[in-house]
This record gives sequence, structure tokens and C-alpha cells, in this order.
Amino acid sequence: MRLSRYFLPVLRDVPKDAEIASHRLMLRAGMIKQQASGLYSWLPLGYKVLMKVKAIIEEEQNRSGAIELMMPTIQSADLWRESGRYDAYGKEMLRIEDRHEREFLYGPTNEEMVTDIFRTYVKSYKDLPLNLYHVQWKFRDEVRPRFGTMRSREFLMKDAYSFDLNKEDAVKAYERMFVAYLRTYARMGLTAIPMRADTGPIGGDLSHEWIVLADTGESAVFCDKRLLDKPIPGPDVDFRGDLKPIFNDWTSLYAATEEMVDMAEFEATVPEEFRVSARGIEVGHIFYFGTKYSEPMKATVTGPDGKEITVHMGSYGVGPTRVVPAIIEAFHDEAGIVWPVSVAPFEAVLINLKAGDAECDAACDKLYAELTAAGLDMLYDDRDQGAGAKFTTADLIGIPYQIILGPRGLKAGEAEIKHRKTGERETLPIADAVARLKGLIEPQRKTDI
Amino acid sequence: MRLSRYFLPVLRDVPKDAEIASHRLMLRAGMIKQQASGLYSWLPLGYKVLMKVKAIIEEEQNRSGAIELMMPTIQSADLWRESGRYDAYGKEMLRIEDRHEREFLYGPTNEEMVTDIFRTYVKSYKDLPLNLYHVQWKFRDEVRPRFGTMRSREFLMKDAYSFDLNKEDAVKAYERMFVAYLRTYARMGLTAIPMRADTGPIGGDLSHEWIVLADTGESAVFCDKRLLDKPIPGPDVDFRGDLKPIFNDWTSLYAATEEMVDMAEFEATVPEEFRVSARGIEVGHIFYFGTKYSEPMKATVTGPDGKEITVHMGSYGVGPTRVVPAIIEAFHDEAGIVWPVSVAPFEAVLINLKAGDAECDAACDKLYAELTAAGLDMLYDDRDQGAGAKFTTADLIGIPYQIILGPRGLKAGEAEIKHRKTGERETLPIADAVARLKGLIEPQRKTDI
Repeated sequence: MRLSRYFLPVLRDVPKDAEIASHRLMLRAGMIKQQASGLYSWLPLGYKVLMKVKAIIEEEQNRSGAIELMMPTIQSADLWRESGRYDAYGKEMLRIEDRHEREFLYGPTNEEMVTDIFRTYVKSYKDLPLNLYHVQWKFRDEVRPRFGTMRSREFLMKDAYSFDLNKEDAVKAYERMFVAYLRTYARMGLTAIPMRADTGPIGGDLSHEWIVLADTGESAVFCDKRLLDKPIPGPDVDFRGDLKPIFNDWTSLYAATEEMVDMAEFEATVPEEFRVSARGIEVGHIFYFGTKYSEPMKATVTGPDGKEITVHMGSYGVGPTRVVPAIIEAFHDEAGIVWPVSVAPFEAVLINLKAGDAECDAACDKLYAELTAAGLDMLYDDRDQGAGAKFTTADLIGIPYQIILGPRGLKAGEAEIKHRKTGERETLPIADAVARLKGLIEPQRKTDI
Repeated sequence: MRLSRYFLPVLRDVPKDAEIASHRLMLRAGMIKQQASGLYSWLPLGYKVLMKVKAIIEEEQNRSGAIELMMPTIQSADLWRESGRYDAYGKEMLRIEDRHEREFLYGPTNEEMVTDIFRTYVKSYKDLPLNLYHVQWKFRDEVRPRFGTMRSREFLMKDAYSFDLNKEDAVKAYERMFVAYLRTYARMGLTAIPMRADTGPIGGDLSHEWIVLADTGESAVFCDKRLLDKPIPGPDVDFRGDLKPIFNDWTSLYAATEEMVDMAEFEATVPEEFRVSARGIEVGHIFYFGTKYSEPMKATVTGPDGKEITVHMGSYGVGPTRVVPAIIEAFHDEAGIVWPVSVAPFEAVLINLKAGDAECDAACDKLYAELTAAGLDMLYDDRDQGAGAKFTTADLIGIPYQIILGPRGLKAGEAEIKHRKTGERETLPIADAVARLKGLIEPQRKTDI
């Protein structure tokens, strides 16, 4: 993408009322614009990151056997009366009347609707296990939206819903999602730790929050340091096999949020040198809640013996619009964002040091065409601006690699590569630039970790 | 995808209250489920088609130079007061109060919000032309939703918005979208004809509706038959060059919807043998409306001479949730849907005639792995069901090619390929099946027409 034809409204000034780094940086890097309290537009750079995050989530959901569909944002109040949550949900639910004065709501979550889909079509135990998910906009009318898209009112959410014949099978479904989540965050470059969590209004008795450690985290968390370095299951993990060993391995070490922590247990089970007491950002939440919705909504199947069985359910959420700022909280420095390659809006930026100079333009145009043809996701700063402004922008928006070419380098037949993360610079023959950048970038795409 | 692990709730019975073929077939093929009046879930098969349609739209928007972003579904009423449309819009607008009793609405369209984004960031004529688009859920509270997702209340819409310095440039932007739309529909296998149209509540003085001819169309249309066979601009069309010759070529032949038709002109300009008077389905609508929104909302840029210039705008809409049923209206027969390859949920379905037979399973599993490895988007009917049910399902859901393998064929070393569209069948050595199917499918993907 040529920057001269792109829409990247970076801000020079630090926005006043943005309290945390990710919110400030998302505004400064032209990723988002607030439209009203808790309502954001995702500008092109931000939207591109959001879609990369969404694609990783979908790939790992599909790999685990979950099936994607799409439920509408607007739901009938009657559906929520069946589960008893319409009155219970309170003011966070955005309630709506249509032109015929029928009651609707903007879905804050989808247990009711997916249970309705299930009970409409699924009749036999033979159709289980089943896990249906969607990635859809949701709305929670927070009293005080804050931290940009970290706690917005309209937000994008992947939620998956599992249906099984009994608790034993439902726990297996839970373990599949557990492993899918391990892989999902790792592919985004995040170290997310599953922690015992309170089940809240969703209900149920087995639940983990996925927490990224960050000083700006909303809640205190307590865990065993050895969780931070645990290897992630590979792409060949068998989702139709027994995942309990992986699940047990991860959950055998202590990790709990402040609502669930038992300090005596924490200190008794975790040797002092491994005790981590820190702040964390929740980037996902998974639940097993048994028959809480299937029972009142009569979601049953016929069992092998012909008897009706109420299915056991779980739900599994991760919010891309919250994950993006969480990644920024984890990866930024004084100069701006430092994207991991797998979720970077562009993998590298080609900086033309003297746009307008015919020779320099020709060399940069050629290099840009070659880099793009090599399959690299490139930004090309071809704007008629000074080098300083270009470097500042490239650093701010956090592109992992900068490849810099100007008249002097051109004369010497050399370009420069700057590694955004380390600040390291290397000079190399222009002819070697494509191979070098490919070599740097491809291993970091994490498509097959 | 193995059908035994998929979620494909096909219906045997023809739904009673579905009036048109596409609505009936989408319900029967397990593509959609109605959740309330005018509100639909897109089940996995339907969602997969919807995403293929969306991807084609995005590719052609990007090719033309439009830039993707994402605006929220919920908008502030104040924004719409600025343009004067909040009171004017009427009951189709879903109006909402939040917990603080502030007025919001579920966006039926986005001229106001995108103009707000523009005026916030764009200050100079140097930043033009600019075309921003998104693909987002919208809501229009129709009095009587009908025809399934053809006229639903919540629907997916791509809308692009162009910003230019003057009318001349704005018309060029309009021509770029015009050509992008020609390519978009052609890639989906549709013959969509641009017709002079009324501008309706959007306003403006240049507008085309894109119409697919179909007996079930909502409106009468009148056009020159020679439009039906006009060649489509190729992938090498230069969107930065002069597109007026293409635009003039297409618009020189008569085509108008019933609101705009002048029968005397129609008959005077179109020779009798070329007169088409038919019914059509609207699958897109493009508008140039000048300063209708930029004027009241003060969207201006500084011109070359330092003076403030109010920008000229256009908007360009196509609704994927309406395009999908339009494709079905155009392509179906007695047995079900007949998808064009480019938007088919799967390109081919492998039918195992004797699932459960160890030898047949092994041969089919192997063939499935090979077809998938060859890059074909495959469905694999591995269910323990009779051949008749499998053929019926494959025909109903409209997969372009069926590849059929059973014990008898296996003994002879042969498989059968059925062409869904023509009914043609061919028997061939199993070893040749992958190459043959690739040869049939790849040219029809229309990624580079």
C-alpha cells in the first residue's frame, strides 16, 4: 500500500483524556476514532490489525473443530425471557423497541440464541459433540466506558458454544477450547495465562480467564512463574484425541484472579521464587455451565436408549477489539507501538528518503514491486515529506521492519534495514533486500507454531 | 470439511410461508434460520457463501483504490441532526435510548458518520481523492420484512463514500465505482445491469441501480438487450486512468427502472428486437450527491489557493445478504441451488457411497486428502446414509461438482464426476480425479476476470 494513497491520520499531540498507553497509541497511530462514548470507528490501520487478530482466532477455532456461523446483533426479548435473563440482566443490556412496539435488545452475549438454533435442528445424540461460534459485534451499556476499545460499549467478540451429551464430554469440549486458546494467543505473540475465575452472570462451575500480564491491567492476579514459559501445543495437536494431559499440565500450576485467589493456598503451593503477584488484562473467558440454559430452554437430544437428554453446554469468548489494545500494552516503547509480525498491519515499510527525485522514485518503486511480489505485506512511504517525519511515523505505527532507501544508498547500491523492536540497523546490497526481509519475516508469521 | 462433523440442517419440507425460490432454498439448504421478523442467523453453509461474496466485493473495492475501515453500528442521534435526517428519516430508523437516556440509532446508512471522520482528519486538497468503505451490519425497520434475507431488517452492507474537490473529480470517483461494480457482479457469475435510478432519500442527481433480471424481481425494468452481453473490464483496467470511455459505453444503451423509465424514449432509442421489458432484483445502488452532507456538516478542505472548498461526495452500496438470494434466484432448478464456482460454499463434494465399509472409507479418505491438498474447497459426505439421500443433499445445496466413489467403482478403479449445472456425468480413473476436478474448477474461480 502506497502511503500517499492511504488514509492514515496520525496525531502529533498526545490525546488528553486517554489514560493508558494503548488508548493513546491507538489514537495517535490513526487506528481508531471515538464516535460517541464507548463507540469507535476502526480506521484503516486499526481495522487491518483487527482483521489479522480475527483471522488467527478463526483459524484456531476451525482447527479445533468449531464451526462458524453468524447470529444477528438484534435479538428478541422473548428469547431472553425463556432463560430468565431478560429481567436479571440489568442496565448493561441495551433494550430496544421496534416500530410495532415489540421488545428487542442488542445482544450482549448469545447463549439464548445459539441454544434456540440448537434445539431447532439437533435431535439426536449422534449429532454431538457440536461447537458453534461466531464473531459478531456486541453491545454492553457500560456506565463508564473507558480505556478506548479495551472497555467500549460496542465491541467485537468471538463466542463459541459447545453442546455435549454429559458433563464428561462437555469437559472434553472445554479442554479443546482451552488448547485452541493457548495456540490463539501464542500466535499473536501474547503470553496469556489461564486463571481460575469466577463464572459471574454466565453461571457454571468451571471457568478460566485468560490473562496477559501488564502493569495497566484492571485486576490483580496471582500465579506460578513457570506458567510463563510453558511450551504451547503445536499445530499437529490432535483435537480428536485426549487433551487432558495438556489441560492438567497447565492447570496444575497455581493461577487465579483476585476474585478467586486463596492466598494461603497460593503461598502453600507455589515456592516463593516462583510466586508472581501482578496486574493483568483479561483477553478471554471460557465457561462450562452444564444445563443452565438447555434446561429452561428445553435443548434436548434423544440418547442411545431413546430417552431425552438435556445437553451440557459451555461458552468461550475472546474479544478482538480488546485483544488489539492488550497487544499494544504488551508491546510498545517510547516511540510507539512494536507489533509482533503476526498481527502487524504491515510487515515492513519501505521508506523512500527522497520522494520526487526521479531516480530514487524509480528504485523504490521497483523494490516495492519486488517486495510485494515476494508475498510481503508492505507499506510504502512514498510521500513528499522529510525523512524525520517518515521515521517518526514508521516507529509510531510500529511496523516490524523499515527498509530505507535514498539517493546516497542508491549510489552505493545499498539499502538499510531497521528492526523496530531492537533498533538494530543493517546495511545491505539492494539486490539482497528482498531475500533478507523474507528471511526475517516469514519465521515470525507463526502460521504453524 | 467432513459432513459428519459439520452443521448442515437441511429441511425435507418446503417451508410454507416462504414466497420466493431463494427464500425457500436458503431455508431448505440449511443456510439461514429466522430468529424474529426480518432477523436471520446465517448457518455455516450460508455464512460461508456470504463470506465469499464479501471477499469478492472487498477485493474489487481495494483494486479500485477504495480503503476499508469499520464504523460502529450504533450512532449518535446528534450526528444525524447535523444533516437534518434524524427527524426526516421516519419509522425505518431504529431509534434507541441508552442507560443515560441519550438518543442513539442503529445505522441504516453512514453518510453522516463518514463525513464526520472526513472532516476530523482531512484538511487539504492534497489528500483527495479519497474513498472510504466498510462492510457492516445495518438495520432498517421495514414495516413488512419479506423474502428472507432479500428484504430483512438487519442486513450486511458494503458502503463506500467518495470525497472529491469538485463535481468533475467526483464523477471520476463515480466512474471508478461503476467499473468496480461491473467486475464485482461478473465475478459472482451475475449479469447485473446498471440502470438510471431515482436517488431517493440519499439525494443527488446521478445514480444507478444495479439490477439482476429475474422473474421474482420486485420492480419492472426496461433495457437494451445488448447490455446483457457486454464484455466486462479486465483485472488490468487502470483505475487511475480515464474510465469515461467504459462508463459511456455502458450508459449509452438504454436501461431504466420503472420509477425512471420514459417509455417514449425507450421505444425511440431501442430497436424493437433489442427491447427487454422484464422484472429485476436490485443488488446495488450508487449515488453522486454533491455537497448534500458536506455542506451542512462543514466537510471542507483547503484548496490550492488557500480557500476553503466544500467537498463533493458520492456513496456506493451493495448488500451481500441480498446478493446471496439474488444469485440463487438466478441459479437454481427443481432439485435445488446451482452455485457458480466463485461463490459456492464448497467447490466439490466427495460422496462416499458406502460409508462404514473399511475399503471404501480408506479410498475416499485418501481421495479427500488429495483433493484438499490440491487446493480445492471440498465437502466430504462421509455420513452413514444411503446414496439417494446424499445425492439429494448435494443437489439441494448446489455444490458445482460431485465426485462419487463406491465399492463397485473402487473395484474397477473408477470414480464418477457429476456436473451439477448440466447433469452431465463422466466416469474416469480414480487416479485422474484430482487433475480433472482442478481443470474444471480453477478456470471458473474468476479471480482474474
